[in-house]
Amino acid sequence: MSIKLIYASPEKDADLLHWGGIFTCDPFLAFEIEERRYVVSNSLEIDEMRRHSKFDEILLAQDLTDQEHPKTIDLIRCICAKFPRHDLSLPRNFPAYLILKLQQLDIKFSVVEDKFLPERSIKSPGEIDQIRKACAAISNAFARVCSILEKAKIHNELLYYEDEAVTSELMRMEIARVCFERGAIAKETIVACGRDAAFPHNRGEGPLKANEFIVVDIFPRLIKSGYYGDMTRTFFKGQPSETQIRMYDAVKTVQSRAISQIHAGKNAKEIHENNMKTFTELGYSSSDSTGFFHGTGHGVGLELHENPSIGERDHHLQSGEVVTVEPGLYYPEIGGVRIEDVVVVTENGAELLSNFSYEWVV
Amino acid sequence: MSIKLIYASPEKDADLLHWGGIFTCDPFLAFEIEERRYVVSNSLEIDEMRRHSKFDEILLAQDLTDQEHPKTIDLIRCICAKFPRHDLSLPRNFPAYLILKLQQLDIKFSVVEDKFLPERSIKSPGEIDQIRKACAAISNAFARVCSILEKAKIHNELLYYEDEAVTSELMRMEIARVCFERGAIAKETIVACGRDAAFPHNRGEGPLKANEFIVVDIFPRLIKSGYYGDMTRTFFKGQPSETQIRMYDAVKTVQSRAISQIHAGKNAKEIHENNMKTFTELGYSSSDSTGFFHGTGHGVGLELHENPSIGERDHHLQSGEVVTVEPGLYYPEIGGVRIEDVVVVTENGAELLSNFSYEWVV
Repeated sequence: MSIKLIYASPEKDADLLHWGGIFTCDPFLAFEIEERRYVVSNSLEIDEMRRHSKFDEILLAQDLTDQEHPKTIDLIRCICAKFPRHDLSLPRNFPAYLILKLQQLDIKFSVVEDKFLPERSIKSPGEIDQIRKACAAISNAFARVCSILEKAKIHNELLYYEDEAVTSELMRMEIARVCFERGAIAKETIVACGRDAAFPHNRGEGPLKANEFIVVDIFPRLIKSGYYGDMTRTFFKGQPSETQIRMYDAVKTVQSRAISQIHAGKNAKEIHENNMKTFTELGYSSSDSTGFFHGTGHGVGLELHENPSIGERDHHLQSGEVVTVEPGLYYPEIGGVRIEDVVVVTENGAELLSNFSYEWVV
Repeated sequence: MSIKLIYASPEKDADLLHWGGIFTCDPFLAFEIEERRYVVSNSLEIDEMRRHSKFDEILLAQDLTDQEHPKTIDLIRCICAKFPRHDLSLPRNFPAYLILKLQQLDIKFSVVEDKFLPERSIKSPGEIDQIRKACAAISNAFARVCSILEKAKIHNELLYYEDEAVTSELMRMEIARVCFERGAIAKETIVACGRDAAFPHNRGEGPLKANEFIVVDIFPRLIKSGYYGDMTRTFFKGQPSETQIRMYDAVKTVQSRAISQIHAGKNAKEIHENNMKTFTELGYSSSDSTGFFHGTGHGVGLELHENPSIGERDHHLQSGEVVTVEPGLYYPEIGGVRIEDVVVVTENGAELLSNFSYEWVV
């Protein structure tokens, strides 16, 4: 039998947040033995832990040792002593300095290289609600973006709203404000226009242009629960060219087809390969940095990017997994298009957790 | 000579954020050799890294290896090969799984148990400005709290504002809103009244009461730069008793005296011990969980709690260090009082970076 042990802060560790359901700033020890979860709290946090955390047992350092100021490694030693015949099982990101001390003390442990809490991939109805809620905040933000773009006037190929230039920065601020009002923090939002949009993670800067793609990728985190949403739409102000219309339609086609292929048991790799094939068939070639050159999707939950991914690796999708579906095309001379939704895998298909129009020309 | 190497995400690692000055979600490798800082970017982020990061050299995996999908450990091996006669120096939180691989490969390394970037403790004028800015957001939030408390009416010992009960939750929301408008995210804000206030990290919940201490501790992070502010005020609506007035005055006295003792060269431990002594002299005894039972202060910067601390350990303060000064008194039957400011240590004293009135009865 094993003691699954984490030493981290829930702000920085989704596994620990999943166990405790509570945010605190400083790192602490928590462990699981036979599905029972323990936390070693300090006296400053104990009251908060008792009232609001999901841990089954809340210990203080003095419950484990008589030492006055025990160090973390001392506490781990006490835990191991309290539960003999159990081996320590540690997550891949367990701190190096503690690993070296465990080795010095000759305490047996193993480090789990893969998922430490594989159960985190399968979302409960409550978790799905949270992700849906985060996506709803994004939809509100998209509505605000559309409203600004609609009202904006074009002058010298640039956009103006209430006499102010419409910039990536302004849009980012508006998006953050809308998300905040819905209880979510949107950081590093992408509002990338023209050439910027051809680099998938370019945040975008400066004035937005008419007659160019505007990729808007929003991935806010709910303040209270820590769950993420993640959606992308590509917008356009002006008159799209044939080339632009074809490129948008290609991404839209691939995205819908990808969603329609999802169901429990399906190999995610196949979906990704089909997307690449479809793009090629539609006449869009890819290289290391042009065309379609990122994964089709990733898991979303307490982390923005978590398991499973829809990409080059085999993975048979399971009911309850929540993933993004976000194909895109990127060419520096044209710009970029990406469309992203979040779905939960079901026995027979995929249920959309995100919901916003695909109208793109405003 | 050594290669200081980090594998992390700047969202979760203040050292890496300090090097690169840029937020990205996924972890990556960065290293420093003879004061030159390198990042190994992926093709999705490269454009953003080039434009906005502070790294001296921006590498792609293919600059280091011909392998098509090199793993992190492969890249580390390539870095070591590229800079022979250099030892790896790793931070204490370096991921366990990579440590085990380095050991298997017999690559020499050392783990720095103490501060990995000790230079981070001494703040530049630009960093001090950021912390001041975060504290200014807090002052605005305190002003909002005061305004609500002033306008609130007392009914059955509870507070009502515009016919709504004034709760910890409502105050937290208002505080978050004010901070957000100033470009900062205030999470886990403490608005703790009555018995709640006697537990230093209790966030507080439910209706605020008249004639009880209300501890308000706000520690927002600036969205763009990642710097924190951290301030606490204790407020009171109603008529304080003699006991309450004495307790507030004791904390105020200790806090001012502590600030007046700060200057470069001073041992922080002495300041903390003096605080404890003064509380005892003023008639306030302490135990593990009552009286004054936490440190006097902590460093603030890209982390909310960072080096140095003003507590039980010897540390000679240095010019440019930024610390909180936050003595408090806590007794479940009375409640709690804490007053916290942020100062930068100077040659001859301490300069306040936080600024808000100490008027407490509204």
